[in-house]
Amino acid sequence: MLRYLSGRAEKAGSPPGSLVHIGPEAARPTEVTVTCYSPSELTERVVDSADECPVAPEAGGVTWVAVRGLENTALIEDLGGRYDLHSLVLEDVLDTGHLPKVEEYEGYTYMVARVFTAGAGGLVSEQVSLILLPGVVISLEEGRGFDVLTSVRDRLHAGRGRMRRMSADYLFYALLDAIVDSFFIALEALGEHIEELEDDVVERPSPELLRHIHEVKRELFEVRRATWPMRDAVSRLERDAGGLVSEDIEPFLRDVYDHTIQVVETTETFREILLAVQDTYLSSVSNRMNEIMKVLTIIATIFIPLTFIAGVYGMNFKHMPEIAQPWGYPVVLGLMTTVATIMVVYFRRRRWL
Amino acid sequence: MLRYLSGRAEKAGSPPGSLVHIGPEAARPTEVTVTCYSPSELTERVVDSADECPVAPEAGGVTWVAVRGLENTALIEDLGGRYDLHSLVLEDVLDTGHLPKVEEYEGYTYMVARVFTAGAGGLVSEQVSLILLPGVVISLEEGRGFDVLTSVRDRLHAGRGRMRRMSADYLFYALLDAIVDSFFIALEALGEHIEELEDDVVERPSPELLRHIHEVKRELFEVRRATWPMRDAVSRLERDAGGLVSEDIEPFLRDVYDHTIQVVETTETFREILLAVQDTYLSSVSNRMNEIMKVLTIIATIFIPLTFIAGVYGMNFKHMPEIAQPWGYPVVLGLMTTVATIMVVYFRRRRWL
Amino acid sequence: MLRYLSGRAEKAGSPPGSLVHIGPEAARPTEVTVTCYSPSELTERVVDSADECPVAPEAGGVTWVAVRGLENTALIEDLGGRYDLHSLVLEDVLDTGHLPKVEEYEGYTYMVARVFTAGAGGLVSEQVSLILLPGVVISLEEGRGFDVLTSVRDRLHAGRGRMRRMSADYLFYALLDAIVDSFFIALEALGEHIEELEDDVVERPSPELLRHIHEVKRELFEVRRATWPMRDAVSRLERDAGGLVSEDIEPFLRDVYDHTIQVVETTETFREILLAVQDTYLSSVSNRMNEIMKVLTIIATIFIPLTFIAGVYGMNFKHMPEIAQPWGYPVVLGLMTTVATIMVVYFRRRRWL
Amino acid sequence: MLRYLSGRAEKAGSPPGSLVHIGPEAARPTEVTVTCYSPSELTERVVDSADECPVAPEAGGVTWVAVRGLENTALIEDLGGRYDLHSLVLEDVLDTGHLPKVEEYEGYTYMVARVFTAGAGGLVSEQVSLILLPGVVISLEEGRGFDVLTSVRDRLHAGRGRMRRMSADYLFYALLDAIVDSFFIALEALGEHIEELEDDVVERPSPELLRHIHEVKRELFEVRRATWPMRDAVSRLERDAGGLVSEDIEPFLRDVYDHTIQVVETTETFREILLAVQDTYLSSVSNRMNEIMKVLTIIATIFIPLTFIAGVYGMNFKHMPEIAQPWGYPVVLGLMTTVATIMVVYFRRRRWL
Amino acid sequence: MLRYLSGRAEKAGSPPGSLVHIGPEAARPTEVTVTCYSPSELTERVVDSADECPVAPEAGGVTWVAVRGLENTALIEDLGGRYDLHSLVLEDVLDTGHLPKVEEYEGYTYMVARVFTAGAGGLVSEQVSLILLPGVVISLEEGRGFDVLTSVRDRLHAGRGRMRRMSADYLFYALLDAIVDSFFIALEALGEHIEELEDDVVERPSPELLRHIHEVKRELFEVRRATWPMRDAVSRLERDAGGLVSEDIEPFLRDVYDHTIQVVETTETFREILLAVQDTYLSSVSNRMNEIMKVLTIIATIFIPLTFIAGVYGMNFKHMPEIAQPWGYPVVLGLMTTVATIMVVYFRRRRWL
Repeated sequence: MLRYLSGRAEKAGSPPGSLVHIGPEAARPTEVTVTCYSPSELTERVVDSADECPVAPEAGGVTWVAVRGLENTALIEDLGGRYDLHSLVLEDVLDTGHLPKVEEYEGYTYMVARVFTAGAGGLVSEQVSLILLPGVVISLEEGRGFDVLTSVRDRLHAGRGRMRRMSADYLFYALLDAIVDSFFIALEALGEHIEELEDDVVERPSPELLRHIHEVKRELFEVRRATWPMRDAVSRLERDAGGLVSEDIEPFLRDVYDHTIQVVETTETFREILLAVQDTYLSSVSNRMNEIMKVLTIIATIFIPLTFIAGVYGMNFKHMPEIAQPWGYPVVLGLMTTVATIMVVYFRRRRWL
Repeated sequence: MLRYLSGRAEKAGSPPGSLVHIGPEAARPTEVTVTCYSPSELTERVVDSADECPVAPEAGGVTWVAVRGLENTALIEDLGGRYDLHSLVLEDVLDTGHLPKVEEYEGYTYMVARVFTAGAGGLVSEQVSLILLPGVVISLEEGRGFDVLTSVRDRLHAGRGRMRRMSADYLFYALLDAIVDSFFIALEALGEHIEELEDDVVERPSPELLRHIHEVKRELFEVRRATWPMRDAVSRLERDAGGLVSEDIEPFLRDVYDHTIQVVETTETFREILLAVQDTYLSSVSNRMNEIMKVLTIIATIFIPLTFIAGVYGMNFKHMPEIAQPWGYPVVLGLMTTVATIMVVYFRRRRWL
Repeated sequence: MLRYLSGRAEKAGSPPGSLVHIGPEAARPTEVTVTCYSPSELTERVVDSADECPVAPEAGGVTWVAVRGLENTALIEDLGGRYDLHSLVLEDVLDTGHLPKVEEYEGYTYMVARVFTAGAGGLVSEQVSLILLPGVVISLEEGRGFDVLTSVRDRLHAGRGRMRRMSADYLFYALLDAIVDSFFIALEALGEHIEELEDDVVERPSPELLRHIHEVKRELFEVRRATWPMRDAVSRLERDAGGLVSEDIEPFLRDVYDHTIQVVETTETFREILLAVQDTYLSSVSNRMNEIMKVLTIIATIFIPLTFIAGVYGMNFKHMPEIAQPWGYPVVLGLMTTVATIMVVYFRRRRWL
Repeated sequence: MLRYLSGRAEKAGSPPGSLVHIGPEAARPTEVTVTCYSPSELTERVVDSADECPVAPEAGGVTWVAVRGLENTALIEDLGGRYDLHSLVLEDVLDTGHLPKVEEYEGYTYMVARVFTAGAGGLVSEQVSLILLPGVVISLEEGRGFDVLTSVRDRLHAGRGRMRRMSADYLFYALLDAIVDSFFIALEALGEHIEELEDDVVERPSPELLRHIHEVKRELFEVRRATWPMRDAVSRLERDAGGLVSEDIEPFLRDVYDHTIQVVETTETFREILLAVQDTYLSSVSNRMNEIMKVLTIIATIFIPLTFIAGVYGMNFKHMPEIAQPWGYPVVLGLMTTVATIMVVYFRRRRWL
Repeated sequence: MLRYLSGRAEKAGSPPGSLVHIGPEAARPTEVTVTCYSPSELTERVVDSADECPVAPEAGGVTWVAVRGLENTALIEDLGGRYDLHSLVLEDVLDTGHLPKVEEYEGYTYMVARVFTAGAGGLVSEQVSLILLPGVVISLEEGRGFDVLTSVRDRLHAGRGRMRRMSADYLFYALLDAIVDSFFIALEALGEHIEELEDDVVERPSPELLRHIHEVKRELFEVRRATWPMRDAVSRLERDAGGLVSEDIEPFLRDVYDHTIQVVETTETFREILLAVQDTYLSSVSNRMNEIMKVLTIIATIFIPLTFIAGVYGMNFKHMPEIAQPWGYPVVLGLMTTVATIMVVYFRRRRWL
């Protein structure tokens, strides 16, 4: 939960703009893949230094510089130099606790988003940075979870659809779309978890459930936190259409915007359901407890007067006329049965039993 | 509840703009009905291919292309081609988890809305898309519930009122109005359900009630979720009046807007009532439980001292002077009665009984 | 509570703009009173048809067409024709479930408001429509409760103050002011009810109280619902000042606006008080219950060890030395007294008793 | 709590603009003090009629007409006539249930504010009206509580600081500042009350506490209600700077604005603390109750099995071999001790005791 | 908690603009350090009077006047005179209960912020004022906690990075950045506290926990309260870029803005976690209590019928046939065992045990 802070406090005091990777341990070494494509051809290679990245693509071509793993800060700094990026952009790329945002810089647009992948131990969230330059898109991922941008790469290789015919802003959009799609996968995982909780609350309510509910709530909260500012970011991109983002892309951005809102709405629905599950759990626990206590108390209540009657005839008075009669014992036993029966009938009538 | 997501996650990764029907199983095969009318005449036929749909109606006439059932994606794609619709519009038509929205495209206006019909198993919600072109209105329904647009068709056939004399934007409005009217039917069904809950909570409170309350709450939540964005959508249509939507239609749109707000407000009222029902239920359960436990505890409390007295005279001491007296037994019985009476009177006085 | 819906669902499907009275049974037959006045004279008569209503008043004069009872839809339709009102306006007048709103039409301004009167069975709410034309004001009431516009008529007849000297927009304002004043009467009735609840919660808390609280809450909610949109409606009137509403009326509208806000604020205060009353009730119920259970449990707890001691000496062992001693019985009785005393003292010390 | 309504309902129906004093009984007769000052001199006198108030001060001078006590409505009406005030302004001055607001009129600015003074029985709130004309400031107070404007008068008399050198708008500001300062005194009184509650909840929790919490909550609510609209009112004054309010005064108004926000924020903090106190109280009550019930139940639980054992050997069977043995009694006593010890140890282990 | 008020109430009534230090006891005597630097050189000295502070730095140089400790109000007043600051600015500097804000004055920009340092007894919060004049930055701290501006001074001395090459607005930004960084340290301290609470609630839930949760909540609330208005303040600085704040600084301010939002979001996350911890605690307390009561009640419930059976055979009737039989005793013992076994089995089956 302290993920969003990790490293922050240590960095406090260092000069602003200094390049330090802030975030959990880097999961993988930095790998830079450069993909150049035009409607007719596509080349892809893994490069070792920023110098190998083409600054401007050939006419009609698009270059995608995909960076996975943020360990090699030197390489990223070189990349920043090569494409003339502001030092704060580089700092933001490396500080992986950012909320989604879009920033317009002279000559390029910088976007930060969060991506969710559902792993064994719950949702894994990582930061993805997208930079749109004329003819070039740079993507930078932490590379801790599943690679959500793979689908875009696959479509580029396949060469089907409009993908290869369109310019760099369409690639930018396609990456954004893949990112937002990752939210649906995350939500589906959460949705399944919630459905299990819904079943469990009816079939086997246990104190564990409450903990699970809180866990899912927290994950929902994270998804919501990461989606909410996406709305503003995407609508900002949409509004600024006309610059690097061409107007043809506008309907596509509007589509991404709609999906983002769908995600937010779904988290809202899930939250409502979780609240209902929690309500149901608490109420079923208290019902069950009440039921138990009621039955136990009724048992005790029936026997206490009987025990009293037995106690009366256990007294050692010399002169207790009933004691000596042969009918004494059966009559008292009968009395006891009657009292018990009356009580049971009474409790039944009042629907206590 | 996961309806809004179904299929989404599977589609994640496929190229944007690809036509896949996302939603629950199509309930019916696709059926396209083309209705052409003018003040003087009306023709209606079911067509099998998009080519049979007139692109532009005759002067003064209006064409309504009504599609029910979204199974036949090929046919819908053809239709999109014939009327030159953006691929994202077609994608949205088929992805039936959208929230209401209005989008202006070059030459046409696209609107998505949700329709509610009250079935046996609760509310059924489906997506309706409306597309307004010059002289043409295309409506696309999932066709899972009751056909809410029937009333518009009936009025067209009847030829009464202003229906046949007005242009395509009035048809567009009339369809929208029928959609919003469907909400009132849904709300009335919910309202009846809520009234039953209000009676039940007084007459036969049971743990079931809580589950019912949560169900109705969730349905209300769905209605609200589908109505809330309608407000913005309709007010956007209203603001843009002057283009495809003529200014004569403005007061009618304002009317639809008012109805939408009435729906939202009614869901709000229903929610308040449900909260009160829930409050009443929880408080009545706890009152009942308290009442039971109190009576049971009082019974036990009265007999425990009596049993103690009996216990004292059940002791086997050789030298217990009372034991041997003839008045011993009746005096102790009298003592017990007195103690019991005092306790009952005391509990009555303190209003515990 | 379903008042806002009644009839709506039945109407769904009928052509928009059709004149049907939607609302509870009309309480009274339609009565139309036409009042024409100028600073110097005033005439008033009840008319039977719309034709008797003057379309334009004489120079310097004002005409007030007051309709009470909405049963006679034909008459109201005629009236609409005579003053050239949009069919949707007439529809809104008859559909008595509207929230307050103001609509500007070509040549007239239409306002819907709700009025509250406190009857024996709680608040009665009805819809009042006001239409401002040049020199003419039309008011249309359901006529189910107390006539809140009487005071305006009385002032007109009295001829005192600025009432008769001012133009139609002042009459419009005066009616609006009378409507908002009706809210204060309703709130005062609610306020008295709330004060009773405040007393009851201290003096005779009963489960009934909770039901009463919910009832008052719901009435408050209705008042708030009807007042909240009044703010926007009045401020819209204020902003549009300069047309039919002259600028002289602006400060008066601002005054109405202030009163509306006062009503909203008062409902807010009342809600806070009700929440406190509810809190106090629930906490007092639980305190009382706890107190009872504690005392009962303490009684049982004191006697159980004593009964155990008695039980020990009720055992039939042959060799129990104490049994045969003459001091056995008094010593055991003493022991019991001691144990009981110690327990009572201990419970007192720990403030349990 | 119904203070804000008192008199309102009675007035409903009277013509708007009629001068009636609405509010609790006037606490003091009306007193009008006229203070005229310039940098060099200051004169002050109590006047009996509005005619004695200078309409326009001498060049460079400022006139402050201070009215305390609103009983003499005739005098206030005269004053209104003399300074040409709108009848609605006079009505608002006398209707002491207003929320803070600022209204610009032709030639003067009217402001209503609420003032709080902490009396023995809690906070006393009264309405203060300020009217700024060229060179003249009129202040009208109810005069029920402590005179919060005294400090301004004292500073004027002392003649120190910039007070006497500045124009009428500075006096207006100084009065406003004194009003806002009164809130801090009220908050300090509330703060002390809250600190007492914080101590009490730990040292002597009692059901009274809950009532006190609700009382303080309600007072906080009143302060907040009276401060919240002050923000808008002051920021409106600030924005309109340039007219009667000169631009030099702008930073001072901004300062008042800041203080207002501080008050709102402090009420917010106090509310949080009260919620925590309430939480702590409820939780401590339930803890205490649980503790008591647990101990009592444990005592009963330990003795019930022992009593059973005693019961067994109290049975009168002829053939119970243990009964006749000399070791029978001590062995059973030992058994009882063992059972009791085991139970106590077990309860200790599970930390139930 | 009353920190934000301390001294306020006492000051109420004094003329606005009077210089009084409002806040807790000054922790240290006032110390003024003047640092003059340019890319090539840096001089630093502690001065005793305002006259020693250079009003305008040499061309290309920047002067930083750092004041720690606000005790010496005379010195601060002199400083205000030397740099021609408005009296309200000086008043705000000394009144240490302000919320963050930015104010533009003729010739300088004034900013108030709050700084948090984590001490032994929780968070220490103090006010820092920053004033940006052409070429000069004045910082004024209370000096109660840790010096958060040290890091900036260290970087200046080191002369590395862009620090020394940039103009006064960059210094202003660097100080602001250091202030916001201090929040992360505070949040990290709170985060650790929260993690401890999360562990404690599972391992050793105690009533203390609730108090700790409320304490942390209150601290979070304070941080949030101090950060929230920072957003507006920083975005105001950003918008006004072009005056004293040059456009080059804009991206840096945007960066500070982002960090501020991160802080607010983190407080939000922490609050959610605290709510979950509180929920878990309350639910675990009630679970534990329920568990105890259930076990105890079950023990009692098992023994009460057995005691009754023993009671029956303890009755002294002459004619009880079983009594005399040799198999009587063992049969009854067997009966008792059977009853107990049946009950245990039944309770197990229903999962009550």
